Amino acid sequence: MIPGLIVVKIGGAVGIDPEPLCEDVAALVGQGTPLVLVHGGSHETDIIAERLGKPPRHVTSVSGHQSRYTDRETLEIFAMVVAGRVNKLLVERLQQRRVHALGLSGVDGRLLEGKRKSSLKIVEDGKVKVLHDEWSGVVERVNAPLLQTLLSQGYVPVVAPLAISYAGEMVNVDGDRAAAAIAAALHADTLVLLTNVPGLLRAFPDERTLIPRIPRADIEAYFPYAQGRMKRKLLGVQEALNGGVRRVVLADGRVDSPLQQALAGKGTVVE
Amino acid sequence: MIPGLIVVKIGGAVGIDPEPLCEDVAALVGQGTPLVLVHGGSHETDIIAERLGKPPRHVTSVSGHQSRYTDRETLEIFAMVVAGRVNKLLVERLQQRRVHALGLSGVDGRLLEGKRKSSLKIVEDGKVKVLHDEWSGVVERVNAPLLQTLLSQGYVPVVAPLAISYAGEMVNVDGDRAAAAIAAALHADTLVLLTNVPGLLRAFPDERTLIPRIPRADIEAYFPYAQGRMKRKLLGVQEALNGGVRRVVLADGRVDSPLQQALAGKGTVVE
Repeated sequence: MIPGLIVVKIGGAVGIDPEPLCEDVAALVGQGTPLVLVHGGSHETDIIAERLGKPPRHVTSVSGHQSRYTDRETLEIFAMVVAGRVNKLLVERLQQRRVHALGLSGVDGRLLEGKRKSSLKIVEDGKVKVLHDEWSGVVERVNAPLLQTLLSQGYVPVVAPLAISYAGEMVNVDGDRAAAAIAAALHADTLVLLTNVPGLLRAFPDERTLIPRIPRADIEAYFPYAQGRMKRKLLGVQEALNGGVRRVVLADGRVDSPLQQALAGKGTVVE
Repeated sequence: MIPGLIVVKIGGAVGIDPEPLCEDVAALVGQGTPLVLVHGGSHETDIIAERLGKPPRHVTSVSGHQSRYTDRETLEIFAMVVAGRVNKLLVERLQQRRVHALGLSGVDGRLLEGKRKSSLKIVEDGKVKVLHDEWSGVVERVNAPLLQTLLSQGYVPVVAPLAISYAGEMVNVDGDRAAAAIAAALHADTLVLLTNVPGLLRAFPDERTLIPRIPRADIEAYFPYAQGRMKRKLLGVQEALNGGVRRVVLADGRVDSPLQQALAGKGTVVE
């Protein structure tokens, strides 16, 4: 248990500039706040995969979630981009601000462990299909002692969304849920999920319909408002709360001082 | 000081299969030997850079060393490939053998620090030219406490050859010399540099002319035998020995049990 720990997830979506976030992180860390940063990288993966002649295949699972079909080749491109490009560029930016950032992915030291999902049931043209050679997974265990050791020595862990299966296979995981699992394992005070909307909207995409507060007991009732990737975020919110996180904030990553604003309660606060 | 510590550098050259090395690492680590693995990735970087439409530019410096011109775009591709692809695939392989591998690059936690070289003096068509926008460097400081912490907790650090400048800029560094700097900082017992030749050859490329032993005091006298990338390796050997490493072995990475053979003294042993 690290008092006042904040876990922040920054999305990989278009329109999110990491600069204001890195400034906020530097200010908070400079005041002695322990912090873990988790990031995505889907958008950059798509761009590089396209340039490498392996365009992404986005699918809709039978449960209605949007996801990426991750065959082995796609996994290796994803790993390269998130752990080698997005992660290292974030670490570099933070180091330039004197933040003692240390990048890791979930495979490193088995930081994030889970089951591999080796096939994907999808709906395409109204039909259910099964795709094999899938390399994704869901985080079930977090190597909390590793993060605690790093935090206690003043590092800011920066985590790329990969995990390792119990059999030692690298898998692609959802960054929001990885952040939630980390927040739960470390009993974080606050989990902030930054995205490209101001929070949960009652009538997506109308930003005037932002839901500012959700009592933690009522979270289930708000799932029907979630569209697209927001469904996964709400699953993450629920997992974090069940794991003992005091407060979760879904907030806008596109604004100035995104982290300061989120911590001040701007966005959808669940507590 | 970690008794019996071994630092191993595996090259990124063509013809080197990581599989036998990973088996050797698993066997040694299983016996309780502390180990740090450093890797390259130039060859894979070249392939991916080519596919991304940014073919590598290999140059010869005025001092006669062969190197890669690393402009910012090339640096970002290099980082992506070495830290995201080569590093994570090695960690995955090792984890499958129950080695508690943890991948890092030199930017993470300022593991490897040094000066950035922002221009490159090269010889091309017999003329000296200066290339600007260079993003490489030489390791001058190693965050030894970070590696010691990880080793003491049973991790096997797997290090990608990036470093961070004092101003916080990510730079490309030579993997052999990075391994030498790590071995020196940790006062390793043995540094093993695996490559695609059997060791230092008196008449390169004739492998029957292998030099089996070099007394440490005589290393300078052997520089004239070094061809191409071997020059850098000998600089690394010298740096490691000056830093207090007991023994350095230049050995063949293409054979079965490459690490076992190197530790048994096969190759060029400097001690």
